[in-house]
Amino acid sequence: MVFMKALEEKIAKEGKIFPGNIVKVSGFLNHRIDVDFMMQMGEEISRLFSNCNINKILTIEASGIAIAVCAAAHMHVPVVFAKKSKTANVKSDVYSTEIKSFTHGNTSEVIVSKEFLSADDKVLIVDDFLAEGNAIRGLSELVKQAGGEVVGCAIAIEKGFQGGGDKLRKEGLKVESLAIIDEMTDNSIKFRA
Amino acid sequence: MVFMKALEEKIAKEGKIFPGNIVKVSGFLNHRIDVDFMMQMGEEISRLFSNCNINKILTIEASGIAIAVCAAAHMHVPVVFAKKSKTANVKSDVYSTEIKSFTHGNTSEVIVSKEFLSADDKVLIVDDFLAEGNAIRGLSELVKQAGGEVVGCAIAIEKGFQGGGDKLRKEGLKVESLAIIDEMTDNSIKFRA
Repeated sequence: MVFMKALEEKIAKEGKIFPGNIVKVSGFLNHRIDVDFMMQMGEEISRLFSNCNINKILTIEASGIAIAVCAAAHMHVPVVFAKKSKTANVKSDVYSTEIKSFTHGNTSEVIVSKEFLSADDKVLIVDDFLAEGNAIRGLSELVKQAGGEVVGCAIAIEKGFQGGGDKLRKEGLKVESLAIIDEMTDNSIKFRA
Repeated sequence: MVFMKALEEKIAKEGKIFPGNIVKVSGFLNHRIDVDFMMQMGEEISRLFSNCNINKILTIEASGIAIAVCAAAHMHVPVVFAKKSKTANVKSDVYSTEIKSFTHGNTSEVIVSKEFLSADDKVLIVDDFLAEGNAIRGLSELVKQAGGEVVGCAIAIEKGFQGGGDKLRKEGLKVESLAIIDEMTDNSIKFRA
């Protein structure tokens, strides 16, 4: 909890608000990565999902990789990152689905090689942001195609006011976000208590 | 040195050779990331560049991020990752250059926000592969545009037979590769002694 406060302070101090409900934290979470701070975030994620028997972390390139690796370093499990593909993949050796990006406004075909997801997997999905929940749903779909189980998902920053996280929670998914933004104006950010 | 042996054994055991001098290590280095193993690689990179006063690691998305984060976790410096852009960027707020990918055969415009590279920076460039050296040269160019200094570069796997690494060394750059492949046939890999 002390750590979550530190994250909120960092978002409030370093985050930049752009039109269209975009908050950029390029200074420590993506583009520039404050690795010491993100290793603390990874430790917190590890604590939140201890005793869940997770054997794999799934994320999506590129900005999910850093937070996933930092969580994995504490959980001692491998990370698999889904790749964005410009062309539709109907290859038999990959699981694939489509994910719409809230930030970028486009839809990507997203793939994982079949050899890296299996029916034995108990997967923690990790990502930097959660807005409408499209990435989480897409990554869950890939795990489902493999016959594996999504144990939960861990997010650095959830934009609570967009509702994606709470919808997933209502459906029974364990969603743990290290910071939840409940309100955002041009010059202020209000976090969920 | 013990660790480098472990990496060579892992490449020989898990690496897959494809036509056109491509070796894929998707099972532990990219796509699926063996984080415990890569944290050891990061520790070795930290050892190789101790006392170099490095204050920043620069890499390129997506597959360079994991190894960069693992090195940074031991070196306690931030990571900046250059972003690939489909469209030419002539924006005034980014440093940009072009990098030709040996693996993918295409050329990308690569950018870093000006706020994340500066003249004070003593930069270690980190990447997963070194073939012709194009990525290293492109990333060095971004550091140069910022007025910073490239202290050296750390690579997981260098394809020595493509000559890019040795050429950079001859030009005076400190290039440390954790494994150097000097010969590759369809079914064998020979490492530099």
